[in-house]
Amino acid sequence: MKIREEVKNIKPYNPGKDRGGIKLNKNESPFSLPKELKNEILAALKDVSFNRYPESTGAGLREKLAAFHGLEKDNVVVGSGSDQLISYSVKLFSGKGAIVTPPTFSMYRFYSEVSGLKVFPVPLNPEFDLQIEKIKSAIKDAAIVFLCSPNNPTGNTFKRDSIVEILNTGTAVVLDEAYGEFSGVSHMDLIQDYENLLVLRTFSKAFGLAGARIGYALGGKKIIDYLLRVKPPYNLNSISLRIAEMMLENYEIVQERVEFIKSERSRIYRRFEEVCYPSQANFLLMDINAGDYFRERGISVRTFTGRLEDKIRITIGTKKENDLLIDSLKDYTEKRDDY
Amino acid sequence: MKIREEVKNIKPYNPGKDRGGIKLNKNESPFSLPKELKNEILAALKDVSFNRYPESTGAGLREKLAAFHGLEKDNVVVGSGSDQLISYSVKLFSGKGAIVTPPTFSMYRFYSEVSGLKVFPVPLNPEFDLQIEKIKSAIKDAAIVFLCSPNNPTGNTFKRDSIVEILNTGTAVVLDEAYGEFSGVSHMDLIQDYENLLVLRTFSKAFGLAGARIGYALGGKKIIDYLLRVKPPYNLNSISLRIAEMMLENYEIVQERVEFIKSERSRIYRRFEEVCYPSQANFLLMDINAGDYFRERGISVRTFTGRLEDKIRITIGTKKENDLLIDSLKDYTEKRDDY
Repeated sequence: MKIREEVKNIKPYNPGKDRGGIKLNKNESPFSLPKELKNEILAALKDVSFNRYPESTGAGLREKLAAFHGLEKDNVVVGSGSDQLISYSVKLFSGKGAIVTPPTFSMYRFYSEVSGLKVFPVPLNPEFDLQIEKIKSAIKDAAIVFLCSPNNPTGNTFKRDSIVEILNTGTAVVLDEAYGEFSGVSHMDLIQDYENLLVLRTFSKAFGLAGARIGYALGGKKIIDYLLRVKPPYNLNSISLRIAEMMLENYEIVQERVEFIKSERSRIYRRFEEVCYPSQANFLLMDINAGDYFRERGISVRTFTGRLEDKIRITIGTKKENDLLIDSLKDYTEKRDDY
Repeated sequence: MKIREEVKNIKPYNPGKDRGGIKLNKNESPFSLPKELKNEILAALKDVSFNRYPESTGAGLREKLAAFHGLEKDNVVVGSGSDQLISYSVKLFSGKGAIVTPPTFSMYRFYSEVSGLKVFPVPLNPEFDLQIEKIKSAIKDAAIVFLCSPNNPTGNTFKRDSIVEILNTGTAVVLDEAYGEFSGVSHMDLIQDYENLLVLRTFSKAFGLAGARIGYALGGKKIIDYLLRVKPPYNLNSISLRIAEMMLENYEIVQERVEFIKSERSRIYRRFEEVCYPSQANFLLMDINAGDYFRERGISVRTFTGRLEDKIRITIGTKKENDLLIDSLKDYTEKRDDY
């Protein structure tokens, strides 16, 4: 048994410490499903045959997602979290490596490395914007480029022109719009013109279903056909499939909650503008090194190593959670020299 | 965008035609959960926070599985089907390829190819037994060997001595015991002596939870530590985790149903011994080319291409389903010259 060197070097993913209390560390939705809807879902699960395999590609959900976005079933692949679709995408293209733009979601690097792709990092500039020219120079050896917009953990979006400029190189681009609902902007329409584009979306954030692990990829029919070839059958379970379908039928709940999160994001941002980066997502990156401070007060926030080691990322919570956060933040920023 | 040649050559997995009627084609359990248990499960799901990510490695289920098998949590990894654990295992080891022993479960080949491993097939001999010497000659270039016992779709088990002989080469061995409950034999105890062994088990067969997609791998702590490194976080959803835990607490239901399947397997085998291969699984391979015949009678069975193209595999069903199958089989075998 010879373990691959790449595997020996993998540091297990660290989702951050989670000590209970108020969880503002994972960019989850703070909201449970409305009781009535949850009961409806549980009632619907009575009719799901647990003993039978799901439909091989989740065709029912693919059709509903296609209708939802004005696309066709052949433009959609579903997965057990959009994560799983990242893991499929790194297997599709030939080339030496994957371009990633740190600081960004760490799973692009993880899946690339596990798949044996080299990682070519092209860091975001000091304004957390893409360095287009550097990406274009690195791209000739690349199999794939990962872009996350709004970007996790910085919260900003990238300009459509920049995304198009990268797409025009012809290299495959995975555009992760996991937080797209909170920005109100999507570039998924570009799949009509760019066969090299895959757009990822998730039910884990705005839809409030992180526990059910549901994501999807949108793309032109050609790239989706290839994605379906590397996708194993039955990759999404029957229960999550059914829950996702029912959430789509109740999208007004999602919309309402997105509006709430956006308004709370503004409230916190405006109050702490000096230490907050602008955000188009359901979280705020803050220029304070206050991970331990919050943890001691029962609030879990995301901390980092490396370039962002003196910053924290806080997820927008419920009104009550945000009030508590604001109190603590006020205390911290007013007395920060003491901490 | 340059699609990898390996991807272009992948034939999408074909789980076989599924036209409704009696489903004896996917080796599923024919039994729904007992109504009472399903209600208990649905009631328990009220307390599962759909909006929160699951525990990153499914620690709760890992602990329960460890206790169930008299092992420790660090001997267990859980996945979204044992399939997913195959996909992780092909990334672990260095070497040129994967040894598979056709006719066997096609996903070993699928995941190996998608991961860029060559596939070294060492076909089973005419008695569907392992060709140990040939495996041992092929093994020097191999990263991994896949063995399925009881083997799908042939139904036979491999001798413990043969498995041990392969383990003694030191190359990594994945021993898939998806159908282990129906044979009553497991070699999972070998993980104590062989650090190069991973044993796969599933909730999709005897446990009757194919729709929930739950599988697990057992191994020594070293190999499990590496497996956890290539496993992404949150790979199994919170709902399936909870369902699996509750099924383990109700294992007597599983046992009862396994006994039923075994007794029905004997009943069909004894009646059609001339055309049946002996089986230690929840299915029977039959030496009749009767796929279309059964399909016309509303019974879906598994058909094949290649070496088994003149055979079918039928999954053991409910009493009523098996009675109908037996009637049709009787009709077919008595009049087979007419078909």
